[in-house]
Amino acid sequence: MRLTFLGTSAGAPTPYRNVTGLCLAIEDSRDWYLFDCGEGSQQQLLNTRYSAARLQAIFISHVHGDHCYGLPGLIASANMHGRTAPLTICAPDGIEQFVRTTFMHTDVNNLRFELNFVRSDQPGFFYRDKYLDVSAIALSHRVPSYAYHCREHPPYHLEESQLDKLGVPRGPMWNRLQKGQDQRLEDGSLIRADDVRHPAWAPRQLIIGGDNDQPELLASALPQCQLLVHEATFTEDVLARVGSQYMHSTAAMVAKAAAQAELPNLILTHISQRYRLGSGEHIEHSVEDLRAEARQSYTGQLFMAEDLESYELDREGALTIRKEQN
Amino acid sequence: MRLTFLGTSAGAPTPYRNVTGLCLAIEDSRDWYLFDCGEGSQQQLLNTRYSAARLQAIFISHVHGDHCYGLPGLIASANMHGRTAPLTICAPDGIEQFVRTTFMHTDVNNLRFELNFVRSDQPGFFYRDKYLDVSAIALSHRVPSYAYHCREHPPYHLEESQLDKLGVPRGPMWNRLQKGQDQRLEDGSLIRADDVRHPAWAPRQLIIGGDNDQPELLASALPQCQLLVHEATFTEDVLARVGSQYMHSTAAMVAKAAAQAELPNLILTHISQRYRLGSGEHIEHSVEDLRAEARQSYTGQLFMAEDLESYELDREGALTIRKEQN
Repeated sequence: MRLTFLGTSAGAPTPYRNVTGLCLAIEDSRDWYLFDCGEGSQQQLLNTRYSAARLQAIFISHVHGDHCYGLPGLIASANMHGRTAPLTICAPDGIEQFVRTTFMHTDVNNLRFELNFVRSDQPGFFYRDKYLDVSAIALSHRVPSYAYHCREHPPYHLEESQLDKLGVPRGPMWNRLQKGQDQRLEDGSLIRADDVRHPAWAPRQLIIGGDNDQPELLASALPQCQLLVHEATFTEDVLARVGSQYMHSTAAMVAKAAAQAELPNLILTHISQRYRLGSGEHIEHSVEDLRAEARQSYTGQLFMAEDLESYELDREGALTIRKEQN
Repeated sequence: MRLTFLGTSAGAPTPYRNVTGLCLAIEDSRDWYLFDCGEGSQQQLLNTRYSAARLQAIFISHVHGDHCYGLPGLIASANMHGRTAPLTICAPDGIEQFVRTTFMHTDVNNLRFELNFVRSDQPGFFYRDKYLDVSAIALSHRVPSYAYHCREHPPYHLEESQLDKLGVPRGPMWNRLQKGQDQRLEDGSLIRADDVRHPAWAPRQLIIGGDNDQPELLASALPQCQLLVHEATFTEDVLARVGSQYMHSTAAMVAKAAAQAELPNLILTHISQRYRLGSGEHIEHSVEDLRAEARQSYTGQLFMAEDLESYELDREGALTIRKEQN
């Protein structure tokens, strides 16, 4: 699985970081998913291998502008460039209203594709397509905010000797079992798909968090995951000074939750603009401060996200930075 | 006067051009005005000498997203960065609704500054501050669209010998006359400010157009201007192929209107993404095609706008490109 960061800044853009947006794709596929869509996401996208034509679905964590103000432009440009495939947008209350009233006031009444809004803040929210299952985990922020827990569908192998032993005739029935559909034989006996097939590899799972000041809310889902992408807006010292009213996490808070779950890979993003790259006397707050703070409790693989960086999560669950963008 | 282009692309961004946005400032002042605000304008602004803190007013030409989708983010970031001065936004119907409903749906209810929306599509619209007078000229497009006609206020010099001859006592009365306020002397006679003062130089005037397929609508205002900034989305051959339903201008149409008015300076912008920089066999449509088409009827100074280019319109009305951005 491949992740590409479109923006890594908290709240407002800086010369080096755009606001939040993250592409997720399965290996080298040009089909992809977008997690949050801050202003300028469509511009950042022009520097990646992905285009709105192949966008499978959008997941928005919460209604703050730095996570959603890029939606109307992305959709309008996709329309201008000829997209006709329906587009699913999973988001909490407010996002559909924002997009539809924006379009109403700005003369967008001729979209050539359908927008399917799905409320991700409703109990039982579940997204499934040929690549992914996605569920939502409620977080703690100034407005309702959600993490998205993604689980891939690897291809399945049939256990052929087992099928022969059970007397399942080769042909369409094997195909249906491979797809996960239970089958009944002529003698009335039921063959359960999951008894006669196994995934080609253990499905990768990851969580992409929204704004949140309680990373421990992910405790029950994290142990199944190979990767967490989570905001770390502040270090502890800065949080103590600015106060907790913004309801963001520190690097320490996220690191503790990740360590608790023995998570192998952690990417921190949504970084306050006070943290600069590099170090030295002229830099009061550095990205390295965030990294060092996280390192105090987390010993797994740790990355501080940068704009337009791509990461590869391989089938063994190992995470590496990919240098090329396209 | 200085102009800096934040975006020069029609409809959607490209890797080299953002959507429409233009900064206007008086000479070296860091006080400035924004004309149109497509998505990503706040990001482009980070590459200029201007900041939202010193933004005097915004003028929006029409409701299409590539001219206004950057407004909510620009305003929200200005708020985050501590702006408290009220902000005037002159725009046709729909823009205030777009901004206010966006803020309503996205938890922006704590702006520390006032937004003063002024309907520029109303008869008699007129904006005046210490630097500029701005009026609106109705254009022809798929939705109501406006050009903004800007006229600077140069400083005024008093005609001192004339004042002495008229017996106007030196002091506060001279100050008020210099500011343009007529004064009545003790003997009852009225002194008209414009009889005893003159501008330090002829006020510069320019028109910044919105989307428009009838540049001749500017015919009565253009002869007073030193500069027109206007869209030239297509060349004639491309317009003939795509059809006139998008209601945009060709380079030839704008050039003819500028030539008719004997306009000294013309900048063409809002360029369809099919036109590439440079030339050669692999380039079907080049920006040079637009330039060449305009050159056929226009012999004044002609520029094809590029993102983050700055232009200086000096007090003699001569236009030059400035190399430095900041």
